[in-house]
Parts: sequence; structure tokens; C-alpha cells
Amino acid sequence: MAEVMTGAAEIGLIGLGTMGGNLALNIAENGFSIAVFNRTVAKTDSFFASAGPLADKIVPTKTLQDFVASIKKPRAVILMVPAGEAVDAQIAALRPLLDSDDLIIDAGNANYHDTNRRNDDAKASGTRFMGIGVSGGEEGARFGPSIMAGGPTDAWDQVGHILEAISAKHGDVPCAAHLGDSGAGHLVKTVHNGIEYADMQMIAEVYGVMRDGFGMSAAEIGDVFDQWNGGILQSYLIEISAKVAKTADPDSGNPMLDIILDRAGQKGTGRWTAIEALMLGTPASAIEAAVAARTMSARLDERKKGEAVFGAAPAAVDKAAIATSMLEAALVAGKIVCYAQGFGLILEAAKQYGWAMPLPEIAKIWREGCIIRSAMLNDMADALAEDPERNLMLAPFFADKLKDTHDALRKVVAEGALKGLPVPALSSALSYFDIMRTQRSTANMLQGQRDFFGAHGFERTDKDGSGYHGPWAMNAG
Amino acid sequence: MAEVMTGAAEIGLIGLGTMGGNLALNIAENGFSIAVFNRTVAKTDSFFASAGPLADKIVPTKTLQDFVASIKKPRAVILMVPAGEAVDAQIAALRPLLDSDDLIIDAGNANYHDTNRRNDDAKASGTRFMGIGVSGGEEGARFGPSIMAGGPTDAWDQVGHILEAISAKHGDVPCAAHLGDSGAGHLVKTVHNGIEYADMQMIAEVYGVMRDGFGMSAAEIGDVFDQWNGGILQSYLIEISAKVAKTADPDSGNPMLDIILDRAGQKGTGRWTAIEALMLGTPASAIEAAVAARTMSARLDERKKGEAVFGAAPAAVDKAAIATSMLEAALVAGKIVCYAQGFGLILEAAKQYGWAMPLPEIAKIWREGCIIRSAMLNDMADALAEDPERNLMLAPFFADKLKDTHDALRKVVAEGALKGLPVPALSSALSYFDIMRTQRSTANMLQGQRDFFGAHGFERTDKDGSGYHGPWAMNAG
Repeated sequence: MAEVMTGAAEIGLIGLGTMGGNLALNIAENGFSIAVFNRTVAKTDSFFASAGPLADKIVPTKTLQDFVASIKKPRAVILMVPAGEAVDAQIAALRPLLDSDDLIIDAGNANYHDTNRRNDDAKASGTRFMGIGVSGGEEGARFGPSIMAGGPTDAWDQVGHILEAISAKHGDVPCAAHLGDSGAGHLVKTVHNGIEYADMQMIAEVYGVMRDGFGMSAAEIGDVFDQWNGGILQSYLIEISAKVAKTADPDSGNPMLDIILDRAGQKGTGRWTAIEALMLGTPASAIEAAVAARTMSARLDERKKGEAVFGAAPAAVDKAAIATSMLEAALVAGKIVCYAQGFGLILEAAKQYGWAMPLPEIAKIWREGCIIRSAMLNDMADALAEDPERNLMLAPFFADKLKDTHDALRKVVAEGALKGLPVPALSSALSYFDIMRTQRSTANMLQGQRDFFGAHGFERTDKDGSGYHGPWAMNAG
Repeated sequence: MAEVMTGAAEIGLIGLGTMGGNLALNIAENGFSIAVFNRTVAKTDSFFASAGPLADKIVPTKTLQDFVASIKKPRAVILMVPAGEAVDAQIAALRPLLDSDDLIIDAGNANYHDTNRRNDDAKASGTRFMGIGVSGGEEGARFGPSIMAGGPTDAWDQVGHILEAISAKHGDVPCAAHLGDSGAGHLVKTVHNGIEYADMQMIAEVYGVMRDGFGMSAAEIGDVFDQWNGGILQSYLIEISAKVAKTADPDSGNPMLDIILDRAGQKGTGRWTAIEALMLGTPASAIEAAVAARTMSARLDERKKGEAVFGAAPAAVDKAAIATSMLEAALVAGKIVCYAQGFGLILEAAKQYGWAMPLPEIAKIWREGCIIRSAMLNDMADALAEDPERNLMLAPFFADKLKDTHDALRKVVAEGALKGLPVPALSSALSYFDIMRTQRSTANMLQGQRDFFGAHGFERTDKDGSGYHGPWAMNAG
């Protein structure tokens, strides 16, 4: 049995699925005693039985009453239950057993609007609530995730030292931070996942150019990713893309990649990011393109019919026109744009909600533990520290990188267009770059059209003020 | 005073702004007596005073009670008040004065989720409600709009003949139809506006290639649009783009287009369409790109900084590489894709909500009266009648058109990419075409990555079933 006394556990955790169990072990391993509870008692038993020497720090409980009684006051309770109604149900069951200054922490993948609501409810009833985004999958939960916390400052003061202790470390800097009140943490986690979608999609796009354009084998492509992982693109996603590409199916000996069906799933957070960008009125086109690409990938039957009607795309790309080094450069440019959009979204949310949202801190806590961890995030933290309000692509370090790479991005997008190799996220990134580097856009045509059919009014280049109208009736007959 | 007796008006209308006033005149002109009410009585007076001979059919009223008493039972009352809370407030004020079988019709630009809710509320309280999308701007409201109705069948049975009478006509076919229950009409209106955004954006993109790539004047570009309007692209938006481009500023004599500031506004319906597509899980990437382009256009200060950092784009395009006829063909291809996405979205909503949503009817009522009216919609109605579930781009007529034009779209997108001329909506359309005409996509890489870091599982090309995992630990070290 655990050596922890009743009423002495430093924190509690409800929900011993893989993520919750791993998080509890991580907490115990970092020296904090933890009470645990699961609706199914058998799961609590098996979790405790397999905890090994860490069992000394774990207090398994069979009822919510015992669970609550096991935790030191003021209590802190982490929920790791499925996002959505299960969280509300768990809060409703737990809250009456707690004191008003006890803290409930939702560590699931909540939609940040739900976290805002739960926070408002807690404040209205004089209780305390915090929402934390936890990234890094099962491995991260066990050995150090990236933790994005949102909620009242006093909540962070109570448990921040535990969250920092269990988080991933970059050098000795914890990848855990308090980012603002209410849903701030879950919003940042959502944007993290949106960036993840775009990052993955752009890798898949250059993979496609190598596979279908160059005719390279999966293993050869894996070698290219490996090589890139030694350079500016060094990142977890490039690293695992190499591993995925180089792995063979034990049965057939064929590359796993060639056996995996090209119908991608999504769990919603990429979609939420795109929806938030639309609601906040901030461009996230590379992320939107990545979400749309997954949606299209799921329509395999329709794609089969499409190929039957239109035939296969020409595909073959002359390696003299595009070298793999050009794909690497295109990926660098696309990645900078995609992060510029992601940080821009967070900045807009910070303004809208009045949340702190320290952008350099966010870049820092993404450097380790989470899926999008990469070397470039270190440079982003520096650039955002110089001026968090500035578009990331205008920061000197990244502007220089873009100057070096945007021509490669152009050539890859152009070649993809000509040869029928779809590069939607890279194209969207290029369009964003070109629109945002051009003072005089073509939106004057949109404004002319809108004024013509709807009398919406426009601004003029030669006069101040707004609400001007064109003499359409007079000149246009 | 009007010749209509108390209790004899065939319909009522509340809200005499430009749209509401014009709709009332349209109804009167079509021979239906109509009671009108406005919160500000002075507006009712001035409306009535300026109604001319149509005043005979109009019953102006000063109180809601008089208004209600003026209408024949079972009453039908059209609301044309600003979308949002004003509609709920008006319903709350009006409903207690009505009988339960009286019908309230919201003709504003409602979000269809609000219409669903109002319909549910009406059904729960045993009353009747309908939401209709009205497109065509002020002109359309006065002389014949396109009308997209959603609500119970008995509501359409009551007022359908009036809505058909006041609608635009294609030949002698009314551009008004009952599309399904509840929010069906307002959803279709929203998608109409989303398509409108994409249609306008693609026109702006080819305008940009002509202006910045070819160095053509606004008037020269207007001539090109005029010419296109005599061909397959014949449409209201091409027609007014020509007029806008050819109109001169009366003061300076300069082209209006060159004077209009390139900062585009948006009122939300394009954004709603993109959000709905994301929520329904259906790709609407050309519409999303158009919404994002407007959002970026609004960031003029940021674009100025971008140009200062990166310099102006090279822009100049060799007319030997891309002729204006190629731009026309690219626009044809882009337009087909954009409508395929829009109709696909409506189809998905029909399935999700169990609404009728007759796609050929929708194409038919868009042929006249509304902003996106065009010759091509007639062919779309035919193609959708053959098989409404089939992706529009796979219908033989449009597949042939795409076979003829997709190479031009490729060249325009490629040239735009190389020269820094942003063509985000055309690029997104091309990516959609290329993904949907390719059986083997690159999403197998996404599934490999997702299984590697999150054990999400995948399907295989060589075996049935799902939830397979890769031997990542074994082979990937």
C-alpha cells in the first residue's frame, strides 16, 4: 500500500486512461504524492498494481469521497476524461464534495469555448477552475509533455511548480507556462494542433513530389528527411517522417508507407483552429488548406471516380528543374508562414479576450515535449521577444530566411501546379506571403464590385474618409 | 388612403429599410395588398407617400396592433429587420398579437443556426415560422430577387405563390423555391454568398494578372471582361466587373478602379460558409481562400511593411506564356470547382439535417435575380438533375469543360506563383481538382505520422479492416 497518509496527497487525478495514467506516473516520479480515481475500480487496481516503485507515491481510491478525502487542502484535482460532456458530468459529481477554494484542472483536449464557460461558471459560484492543454501524446504525458495553462493566477500559483516539474525541459527551462485566464491554455493547444496539421500536410506534399514527381522509393525519401533533420528543419515531425518512410512491413517486407491507406482521420482540433481563425478574422490559410486536404483524403471513392474520369496526372518532374534541396527550402518558407499565421491567431485571441498570451513563452514551451517541437521554435522565441505584435515573417531572422527560400517555394508550387502534384498548403503559404508582401492588392476590384451591387461604399487612395460610392449609373450605362 | 379594407391585406411586412421597402413595393406591384409597419412611424409615412400608384395596394399602420388587424387570417408577416437580436425582439413583440396558425417569415440575412432555433421555438409553442434567403440587393428586392425558402411545407403552401410572383424569372420559371424545413433556405443563401466571395475573388485574381502581369489599363481590362461576358463566363459578376473597370472618376478622369482602396470589407456570410464547411466536414477550399484573401486585404498596414521588407514582386508576365484567353479558361475551371464545392456543402447539410435540398432547383433559382446569376447555372441545373449526389466536376458536361481548361488553370497558377501574383482561390481550386482526380494521395504519410506519435491506427491497401499499427518501435529504432 502507498506510504501516503489520508489527506496528505499533494494532488489528485481522475481518469486513468493511457494519458491520465501516464500523467499520474509522471507526477509520482517527480516526487509528488497523488491520489487517483477511476469510475471503473478495476482500472484503478490494475494501474496501481503496475506502478512498480512509484506506487509509494500513489493513493488509489475506490469512491469519489475517499478520493477527495485523500488530498491535502486546498485541493487540486486534475481531470483527464474525454473532452465534452464527460467533463461537465465529472465536475458536477465532484464539485459538491470539494471546498470552494479547491481547484479543478481540466487537462483534456477541451474546446476553449467550453473552458471559458466552465471558468465563468466556476467564478459565478465562487469556486476555482483551470484548463490546461497537454501535448506530446502518451510518451509526453509519461516523460514530459508541453503544458499550456489557462486560468486564474492563483490557480497557477498553487500547482505551477508541479506542472513545471512534470513538463518537458529545454535545457533546464520547463515547457509549461501560464498563458492567461480562462480558456487561454486550451486555445493555444488548439492552435498548436492546427500548426501540427499544416506542418504534417506540407511534409506530405513534398513527400508527394518525391514519390510521384521524382519516382523515389519510400526508403530513399526517408533518407532525405533524415538529412533534413540535421539542418534548419530539425524537428520531431521530420524525424518521425523519416522513420515512417524507412520502416518495412514485417510480413511483406514492403515499405509501410506504401501499405498505409491514404485516407486521413482528424479529431477536430485542426478544424477548431480554422474555425477560430475565421471567427477572429485572422488569416490561417495554410492551416485551412491542411484541414481541407484531410477532408478530401477521406473521400477516397470520389477520388477514384475522379481518376477514372480525368486519368492520372502527368506527375513526372525533371530533377533538373527541382532538386530535393529546393523542396527543403520550400518547406522552410512554408513553415515560417504557417507559424506566422498561428502566432497571429493567438495574438488576435489575446486582444479579443484580454488574455496575457506571452508569445515568446509559447514558442519556448513548444520547443520540447509537444508534437511540433523543432529547432526553429527557439529562433521564433527570440523573434517574438523582440516584438510580439510584429508578423513573424517580418522579423529580421525569418525575413532573411524567407528571402533565401521563397524562390524555391515558387518553383515547387509552380511545378506542382503544372504536373498535377497537389501542394495546397504550400500554395496557400505562398499566396499569403505574396499578398502580405504587396502593398497594392487586387481587393480594389472586390470593393468596386461590392459597391456596384450593394452600395457597400469604399475608401479611396486619393482622399481620406470612407463610404465613397462610384458613379456607376452615370458611366456604366 | 389605400383602397384595402381593414383585415383584408393579403400579407404584412415589418421593417421599411431599403430592402424591406423595395420588397413591399414589389409585392404591391404584383397585385397583392400588403400591410406595412415600421418602428419609426415617420418612415412608414414617407414610404407610403412615395409609393405612387402602388399606394392603392398598401396599408400603412402606426401600431403593431393595427398592423396585425389589417391582415387577412391566417396571417403571413414578413420581417425585414437587421439579422440577429432585432429579429428575436420583433418576434417576441409580434407573436402575442398573432393567432397560433399565423406565419412569421424572416427575410433577413439570418445565420441558419438562428433560423433553426426560431423554427424549433415556433414548433414547440405550436406556432409557425419560415426563414427565407433573399438575394439580389436593393434592385433585386424591388424588381425580382432570388428567394430561397426554408420552413414547414404548409408555410410554403400559404405564401409560395406570392414569393414566386415577386421573384426574378428565368424565362417564365420563378426564381423562388421551397428547399426544405427549418434553416434550409438561409443555409442555401449563406452558401450562395460563399460562392459569391469565391467568384469575385477569382475575378480579382485574373484582374491582378492583367493589371500587374500584363500592365493593362483598367479600361483595357474592362474590355476583356466585356468580351468574356459574351461567352461561357456570361454572368452578372463579369458584367459588373467590366462596368466597374471601365468607369472613370468624374473629378479626376482617372479610372475608378485605380482610385478605390484595396481594403475589402465583409459582412460575415462568406465566413459563415467556410465555418459551415468545416463543421460539416466538406471541402470548400476555394471559398475559404476567398474569405482569407479579404481578411488579408484588410491588413493594409502590415502589407505595406511587408513590401518594405521584401520589395515589390517581379510581376511582369510574358503575354506569350499566358494569353488573356488562358485567363478566361482558368476562370472557367476555377468556377466549376467552386460551385462543385458549394453544392457539395449543401448536399452534406441536406444529409445532416434531413432537409430536401433539391440541388437542381437551387441551381435554377440562382439563374436570375441573385448576385451569382450566370449562364453556367443553367448547365449546372441540368447536370445536377442527372445525379444530384455526384460531384459536379464529374458530370460529363463539366468534366469536358474541365478537360478543356485545367491546363490553362495550371499555367496561370504556375505563372502567378513564379511572378508573385497572388492567385489563392484559383490555386485552391486547382489543388482541389488535382486531389479529387487522384486515387492515391499523400495522406498515407499523414496516417503514418499520426500512428507513429499517437497510435491513431490506419487502414491498409492490402487488407480489409482498420486500426492497424506500424512496427515503429521495431524498425525505427
